[in-house]
Amino acid sequence: MKRRTFLIGTGTSAVAMASTYPAPAIAQGIRELKLVTSWPRDFPGFGTSAVRLAQAITRASGGRLVVKVFAADELVSAFEVFDAVSGGVADMYHSAEYYWHDRSPAFSFFTAVPFGLTADEMNAWIYHGGGQDLWDEMSAGFNIKPLPCANTGVQMGGWFAKELTSVDSYRDLRMRIPGLGAEVVRRLGGIAVSLPGGQIVSALQSGAIDAAEWVGPWSDLSLGLHDATKFYYYPGFHEPGTTLSLGINKTLWDSLNEDDRQLIQTAATAENCYAKAEFDAENATALETLVKSHGVQLRKFDDAILQTIGKVSEQMLAEIGDGDALTRRVYRSFLKFRKSAMKKGEVTQNAYFHARGLAVPVGE
Amino acid sequence: MKRRTFLIGTGTSAVAMASTYPAPAIAQGIRELKLVTSWPRDFPGFGTSAVRLAQAITRASGGRLVVKVFAADELVSAFEVFDAVSGGVADMYHSAEYYWHDRSPAFSFFTAVPFGLTADEMNAWIYHGGGQDLWDEMSAGFNIKPLPCANTGVQMGGWFAKELTSVDSYRDLRMRIPGLGAEVVRRLGGIAVSLPGGQIVSALQSGAIDAAEWVGPWSDLSLGLHDATKFYYYPGFHEPGTTLSLGINKTLWDSLNEDDRQLIQTAATAENCYAKAEFDAENATALETLVKSHGVQLRKFDDAILQTIGKVSEQMLAEIGDGDALTRRVYRSFLKFRKSAMKKGEVTQNAYFHARGLAVPVGE
Repeated sequence: MKRRTFLIGTGTSAVAMASTYPAPAIAQGIRELKLVTSWPRDFPGFGTSAVRLAQAITRASGGRLVVKVFAADELVSAFEVFDAVSGGVADMYHSAEYYWHDRSPAFSFFTAVPFGLTADEMNAWIYHGGGQDLWDEMSAGFNIKPLPCANTGVQMGGWFAKELTSVDSYRDLRMRIPGLGAEVVRRLGGIAVSLPGGQIVSALQSGAIDAAEWVGPWSDLSLGLHDATKFYYYPGFHEPGTTLSLGINKTLWDSLNEDDRQLIQTAATAENCYAKAEFDAENATALETLVKSHGVQLRKFDDAILQTIGKVSEQMLAEIGDGDALTRRVYRSFLKFRKSAMKKGEVTQNAYFHARGLAVPVGE
Repeated sequence: MKRRTFLIGTGTSAVAMASTYPAPAIAQGIRELKLVTSWPRDFPGFGTSAVRLAQAITRASGGRLVVKVFAADELVSAFEVFDAVSGGVADMYHSAEYYWHDRSPAFSFFTAVPFGLTADEMNAWIYHGGGQDLWDEMSAGFNIKPLPCANTGVQMGGWFAKELTSVDSYRDLRMRIPGLGAEVVRRLGGIAVSLPGGQIVSALQSGAIDAAEWVGPWSDLSLGLHDATKFYYYPGFHEPGTTLSLGINKTLWDSLNEDDRQLIQTAATAENCYAKAEFDAENATALETLVKSHGVQLRKFDDAILQTIGKVSEQMLAEIGDGDALTRRVYRSFLKFRKSAMKKGEVTQNAYFHARGLAVPVGE
């Protein structure tokens, strides 16, 4: 059908052409790809990034690929996208790997883990530090080819009804926090609660929960979290560089020619850069709005609290990393890269931020 | 000629096909684009990135664009690429905008300025903070459409024969350093020298110069700078996020259809991300090699030195920014973005690096 439409579009007879010549490769190759996402339609930062990626692939392909986006629940629900792509119900998903934690705990290392890699470090590890090969190996077990395709940057620590005085403040604290951050809160004696974004504000306002993390200033402002509580803690040690992923049905991926694989990979890498830059720019503006227009009180986690949380968290990662053979390899690769990145960071970005702070005091 | 080659490649008779049917759009649309660079062929990090970008565009286009790379001196010399693309001798250049400082001092803001934006901040400013529009406006005056296409990250401060004791150590210091970094050294009483990469080691060894900066651990190691001197200062305050650029002849750019423009833009953004990640990964490894295998002594610039350099540098930027109307707009936009990015950085990456340092001491 699509091929016929294309041929008619050239102004020649499709039937005559087909009978005389082999059809041009371009006509044979047109494919419509279904991209299912874990986000509401047009959800800022996440949903919009998926749509932009689909448009880039479609347009840059010059007509040989057409990517159609399905928001959560339009084809399958938010967390069914993995099975849908694995089984071929959809062709690609736009989501985050830590949602597949119950298939393998090692998946979290490809999204974010507490005190893990930042966005830049994730890119360096995945693209040039052996991360992609390990991820490919893990996802291949589920018939999926994975690629990084967006990053939120360092998230915020969350919104708290009361200020934290010590790590004991976590005891019996009811906090909306997912994933490994939730496990850290549990180990500190708190109660981690799972809630979709739309229910967080009312849960905070009713006192059903005492604290909640979401993403960062841009996303939190649009959700209205500042209406519920004013203490906004930083940094988001539990999600230092949350990587979103494009998962492609591997049977489909293997059937694509090199040109189409290059195009999809290039578009995903471009969106990885462009979406991170959008989070950075929008977060800077939104942070100012939250503080200046909404009276939000910024609070830094105390060093003593961070040290305790750090110990609990490192212990947790070590337990996760002590799993099956592949999980152990992922954990070891991740930790080795983190060590090397931290050493480099000391003489590059950390030293530079310190130097710039001396030359240009913040606020000037 | 190219069209004919393509048609023959399909296995049918080009002459017969052309006489019977209108040639397929795909054949009509094939373009060969000449990409001239300011780098030696296969120069690690820079030249290799240009080649990768060309290959990505060529392959992802599915055959409609073919990008041919010319290293420096193969078609035009390193610094003639701007005029070559402006005048249409070549279609695109892969270079760095601060080389066009004498056309407009504002060009430096799109590569790197002392105490300026990091790689992530450059991306946020250019893609989402108004930077691209200003850059477009400036380059359009030279018939060029510019795009960011790679980034070195925070560079190193350079190699010094003697340790710096105070800012007075810069007096009469002969240092190989280009661009605005050179101007800072001059204002500190030093002598800034311009030397191509290949001559730096011998100049240091003969004592013709006392210090030299190049790029970062990966590039410096490959050049052998550690053979000439052992004091390796950080951070590279003068180039905190050196952005490389793809400049496209604007007449050509305007003649491309939306698909081809999308493809080139997507490929440039992807390479911007991928090349930065490569620098980060390779720099981490090379830094370890320099210290462990070559006895390189890392030295951090003293706070007092940085404060003085910062004042000199900010004054210099203000003078540059006080130029023509467009330069003033670029300067104001850049400074406004830096301020906002620094405030956001305090609660995101800076706070996170501090937090992670408490949880995971460097070296563990």
